[in-house]
Amino acid sequence: MINIGIIGYGNLARGVECAIRQNPDMKLTAVFTRRDPATVKIMTPDVPVVSTNEVESWKDRIDMMILCGGSATDLPKMTPAIARDFNVIDSFDTHANIPGHYANVNAAASESGHIAFISLGWDPGLFSINRLYASAILPEGKDYTFWGKGVSQGHSDAVRRIPGVLDCRQYTIPVPEAMDRVRSGENPTLTTREKHTRYCYVVAQEGADKAAIENAIKTMPNYFSDYDTTVEFITMEQMKRDHSGLPHGGSVIRSGVTGWEGENHQTIEYKLTLDSNPQFTASVLVACARAAMKMKARGMTGCYTIFDIAPADLSPMSREEMLGHML
Amino acid sequence: MINIGIIGYGNLARGVECAIRQNPDMKLTAVFTRRDPATVKIMTPDVPVVSTNEVESWKDRIDMMILCGGSATDLPKMTPAIARDFNVIDSFDTHANIPGHYANVNAAASESGHIAFISLGWDPGLFSINRLYASAILPEGKDYTFWGKGVSQGHSDAVRRIPGVLDCRQYTIPVPEAMDRVRSGENPTLTTREKHTRYCYVVAQEGADKAAIENAIKTMPNYFSDYDTTVEFITMEQMKRDHSGLPHGGSVIRSGVTGWEGENHQTIEYKLTLDSNPQFTASVLVACARAAMKMKARGMTGCYTIFDIAPADLSPMSREEMLGHML
Repeated sequence: MINIGIIGYGNLARGVECAIRQNPDMKLTAVFTRRDPATVKIMTPDVPVVSTNEVESWKDRIDMMILCGGSATDLPKMTPAIARDFNVIDSFDTHANIPGHYANVNAAASESGHIAFISLGWDPGLFSINRLYASAILPEGKDYTFWGKGVSQGHSDAVRRIPGVLDCRQYTIPVPEAMDRVRSGENPTLTTREKHTRYCYVVAQEGADKAAIENAIKTMPNYFSDYDTTVEFITMEQMKRDHSGLPHGGSVIRSGVTGWEGENHQTIEYKLTLDSNPQFTASVLVACARAAMKMKARGMTGCYTIFDIAPADLSPMSREEMLGHML
Repeated sequence: MINIGIIGYGNLARGVECAIRQNPDMKLTAVFTRRDPATVKIMTPDVPVVSTNEVESWKDRIDMMILCGGSATDLPKMTPAIARDFNVIDSFDTHANIPGHYANVNAAASESGHIAFISLGWDPGLFSINRLYASAILPEGKDYTFWGKGVSQGHSDAVRRIPGVLDCRQYTIPVPEAMDRVRSGENPTLTTREKHTRYCYVVAQEGADKAAIENAIKTMPNYFSDYDTTVEFITMEQMKRDHSGLPHGGSVIRSGVTGWEGENHQTIEYKLTLDSNPQFTASVLVACARAAMKMKARGMTGCYTIFDIAPADLSPMSREEMLGHML
């Protein structure tokens, strides 16, 4: 039985709580929060909610701490700090800062003799290993990553900060024609605009200047100005009724060639269609907790990523079951 | 530089030869054949073709031997035998006999201190790890494997053995409606007939009884009787012009649920679209040769499968490149 602690209690943490329930070899031991623990109500019966101030005293009761903070400000500090006392897993997803985060966490975990996995989830995570597998198998080729259709929380937040906006849900949508060109073996060079479109459902304050809001969205640098963006104003009721989920997904496609003269085209495609982005990410974290325990038992300490995990270590199956039923 | 030997020189071996050429850290050192070496002409200049009788004398010159024999009679004997003197990789694909083959190869490789990888390719192989990853991440769910559209060589051979048949190419075709039902989250129980159809292009001898041939195909147990099969008679010219390639592919789909009450549907889909089945399989074997060398350098000996290979070991990239560009 793997005793798991969760730090934080947002969407991702609730997903971890649900995923633990689906894995009979896992047990939720405690949830740690920066809020007043009395105000945090979790779903699992008889599991304590504890202040993060007391986390150190749980050292001997928790095998793996799953960190459910944000990548912007929480995890860069939290993961190395907690790795001094616990085995840790995070979903740090700021791609450009991964090497620095890795170095910090590796230093802390190596020194304390713990194992740490960073940047798990689906991108970075499952999409990353699919890029790696596919590029190793088809060295002459090109990778393409498409996201969506799904809700981008960062883009939704950016729109919510525009004056006059009460709520927004931003969907990222891959362009089907671009995906077909990639699958055909054409190996196109695609601009940002050619790969994805963006669709914003916006609830505006009464009397707000909708034309100004629409213009502010469409011209927002980094977030929207490089995309064809559609803005649709809806009511708060419509928002709650039709857009309360957090679906996402996407595809990693490698288009490559084999043969003496590269005469044969080969395509590898990996596709996720997710009703709940945070729950799926959580499910990856929980499977990786099992792998971490097996790797730690073999004496491995320090920081690793999904690239370092042999698939067998993720599974609760024995080698005999795997060879007999999965291979 | 990894020095690679190939045993056998059929379609798969020629694919290995091509794949080695795409990987700058690999070198083809020799091809071993049971035929008279003087009769075997390979593509790579200045590489010797040697009789399999002399294989032992190459012990010190070859890092990895890639075995390109058949699963029915060659590999069950060849892989354990060659593992006594070499690190070996094979593509043994008789699913039901994998546990026995594993035991034999593991005994030989463990005793001799070599590393052996068995059952590599795409199924078993890449499809297997996708089944494993997906089932570990979505424990409440169901796996579906669809093959095709592609040429099944075993089924083509079976038709060729029917009296009056000069040549056959049998295509396995997944049923789109079945795949859509799986993707929808319905988790259907599908019969063999509901999942795939079979299409046979047949060249008959002049004067042969075509109705009898068609009947013999459609009623053939194990191969065709459980499927909706279409038989089309064509000329030898049409066969050569339109059906000389060996395309294949398929999809592994896991349809699962997450959430406290399994309220969210999640789908993971892995799809291969291959112009050349043997060249793609060969590309997997060659990438795995690199992983085997890294694992051997860490002291690992005995028999392993693709389940045991951490993705990072397949790649020629450094950890820094992987973290910076692939994660």
